[in-house]
Amino acid sequence: MTEHYRKMKSWVPVDPDSGYTIHNLPFGIFSTPELSRRVGVAIGEYIIDMRMLARLEFLEALEIDTTVFNRPYLNDFIECGRDVWTKTRQILISLLKDTDDDSPLKPHFERVFLPRRRALMHTPIKCGDYTDFYSSLEHATNVGKMFRPDNPLMPNWRHMPVGYHGRASSIVTSGSEIMRPKGQVLPKGEEQPIFSPSRALDFELEMAFVVGKKTEMGESISVEQAREHIFGMVLFNDWSARDIQKWEYQPLGPFLGKSFASSMSPWVITMDALEPFRCAGPKQEPEVLDYLKERGHHHYDVNLSVEIRPGRYAELETVSRSNAKHLYWSISQQLAHQTVNGCNVNVGDIMASGTISGPTPDSCGSLLELTKGGQEPITFKDGQERTYLQDDDVVILRGFCEKDGIKVSFGHVRGIVTPTKQ
Amino acid sequence: MTEHYRKMKSWVPVDPDSGYTIHNLPFGIFSTPELSRRVGVAIGEYIIDMRMLARLEFLEALEIDTTVFNRPYLNDFIECGRDVWTKTRQILISLLKDTDDDSPLKPHFERVFLPRRRALMHTPIKCGDYTDFYSSLEHATNVGKMFRPDNPLMPNWRHMPVGYHGRASSIVTSGSEIMRPKGQVLPKGEEQPIFSPSRALDFELEMAFVVGKKTEMGESISVEQAREHIFGMVLFNDWSARDIQKWEYQPLGPFLGKSFASSMSPWVITMDALEPFRCAGPKQEPEVLDYLKERGHHHYDVNLSVEIRPGRYAELETVSRSNAKHLYWSISQQLAHQTVNGCNVNVGDIMASGTISGPTPDSCGSLLELTKGGQEPITFKDGQERTYLQDDDVVILRGFCEKDGIKVSFGHVRGIVTPTKQ
Repeated sequence: MTEHYRKMKSWVPVDPDSGYTIHNLPFGIFSTPELSRRVGVAIGEYIIDMRMLARLEFLEALEIDTTVFNRPYLNDFIECGRDVWTKTRQILISLLKDTDDDSPLKPHFERVFLPRRRALMHTPIKCGDYTDFYSSLEHATNVGKMFRPDNPLMPNWRHMPVGYHGRASSIVTSGSEIMRPKGQVLPKGEEQPIFSPSRALDFELEMAFVVGKKTEMGESISVEQAREHIFGMVLFNDWSARDIQKWEYQPLGPFLGKSFASSMSPWVITMDALEPFRCAGPKQEPEVLDYLKERGHHHYDVNLSVEIRPGRYAELETVSRSNAKHLYWSISQQLAHQTVNGCNVNVGDIMASGTISGPTPDSCGSLLELTKGGQEPITFKDGQERTYLQDDDVVILRGFCEKDGIKVSFGHVRGIVTPTKQ
Repeated sequence: MTEHYRKMKSWVPVDPDSGYTIHNLPFGIFSTPELSRRVGVAIGEYIIDMRMLARLEFLEALEIDTTVFNRPYLNDFIECGRDVWTKTRQILISLLKDTDDDSPLKPHFERVFLPRRRALMHTPIKCGDYTDFYSSLEHATNVGKMFRPDNPLMPNWRHMPVGYHGRASSIVTSGSEIMRPKGQVLPKGEEQPIFSPSRALDFELEMAFVVGKKTEMGESISVEQAREHIFGMVLFNDWSARDIQKWEYQPLGPFLGKSFASSMSPWVITMDALEPFRCAGPKQEPEVLDYLKERGHHHYDVNLSVEIRPGRYAELETVSRSNAKHLYWSISQQLAHQTVNGCNVNVGDIMASGTISGPTPDSCGSLLELTKGGQEPITFKDGQERTYLQDDDVVILRGFCEKDGIKVSFGHVRGIVTPTKQ
């Protein structure tokens, strides 16, 4: 990170606590009562209407069909390719940077910028295939102990980023209601399952990346190429019904215990914005196979937290603090593994990390872990207890990067639990 | 099936052995050197160009935007809804039926009909989410014995149609090359995996259905509603790399051992065409939970077979004969289970049955079962042996229904194994 880059400021007012800085410039899809769904970029308390920016001819240098900014998903913009993403960012930085000369954007402020609080944010990506990895050693060990006390970490775990295919259709964004799923559960000590609303509804603190470049069947992406194939990252809540999951998941993996909903944060943080926050991951022992070997750093230092509002009239309280740098497997290793067999990927595919638990008890990324499988409830300030989520509970995941005085926020992803429909 | 329906014949010549009868009328996507990808309907040795049929105003009664027939996937036509599918079929039957009056289509024969051998068939469906079930008791038991000798059939198996999410991006159609995948495998008796092309490439004889009506998150489809939500069915080859699968699949299920390719047959057989072939399934013991209970018959009597051409210069030989009626779980139960937790489905979602093995040794739907886990090779007429597939081997799945003199063919789905790219 150059000193020049670090010191860069915007003439658009950005609160010192805000992570929607000129260093961030995340992409999302918004609408207002007047404006249909389209691409926006966040800065400070504002959203830049990219369609309007194009119409005012500020994006001519991109040499693309700028109607890609007038779409209900980011996919068509992402299809334009990495050079276009980076060039778009450079144009935005040059327009937003505080310099001696006034920005040519200032006279158009009212047309191009709108207050974020006035906009409705939508699911930014039309997801083709969604993969959920299982890349935190701490999470895999914590959960493994509960589901398989005699065999917590499978022999394959340290050799590959274990993952499974998830359900793409039920990926939603912040603010969505999460209906408590119903299904088969096996009451303790019984041999016959019953049909019931889940009594063990949980969140999972994850991050996810968005594939930015397609491959053909038969192609593989190497670890070193992987970042070139990734558009950006989001926060991701992989809602889980532990009782449904426990009864169904053998031998083919999680299915209805997960497929009812996953929530992604609305702003996609680009890999360019995250570049200053690259860091080393944990040492991998035993040594991995060649196709998973990394040169340099492929992890990201992202501070993460989970807040719960237990019930309608309670206050939000932080229940976990973690960091993406704790992940054992990097996003580059995940993408290399996903494609090593020749599986093709498409723009808009989403690959999530798996629950990001840290080494300490307060850094566990799920209630399953925080409450030791529902055995030890957590207590809130108002005296309420929770093992798993109750109706009306709100869960918020937050994330931000901070280094040498620059801050890049992931914002948050919020979900509210609603009762099962009968 | 009325006598009238049964006796119906077309004025278009249909070979007595052909299953592309007036009772069938499957939908697919074709192109020729002159015609771009579009919707076609098969009859005899011909394809009906549905775009041309619309242009000639034979489809006015549908009261839809007939440009849906000029698309590279069937999805937009399917979106029109069940009434439109049925009405389209009725119009086609009335135009194709041999009656005393000449069909108004006859004068347009050259423009509307083209020989099937001149057309290239494409993947008919743009798949959103792909689910693979595991619905054959025989297959689950056969495989369970090999992977988990002490625990072949999991306790949940007879209570629910176990399934997992598969990879939608790599679904291709008949004629596609299937590149031998590479990946991690654990050599026998070793503790460290190696990286290698798969040495245990297998087919899986499956059928799949195509979802025809979307649901919203939180909704569930009952067993009795399910058929209304299904557009049609295809043959499905869920290619599997057993060595990769074996090492990776615990605890989250199949991933890279499956995601490199799945092949679907190009003609989608509608539920209307399959109606005469509904039949009873096996008795389910113990009794299933209410949401899985069926009234009437939800199984289909579809004769299935697998042929292999072992190497470039060999002949095709049948290695397995099975039938979809052997499946323990019906497609209605599969769709009800998939959505019981509130998971939404979309038009174009594909749900496959899992390998359809029958009760006899020659009805096993995979080499894993036919060769007892690679222990007992099968021998071809020319003396060649196979445990698993070799490069240049061709696998063809075929399917047809026959009852009271009427025949409905699924055609076939063919794949050829090509060497791993290095």
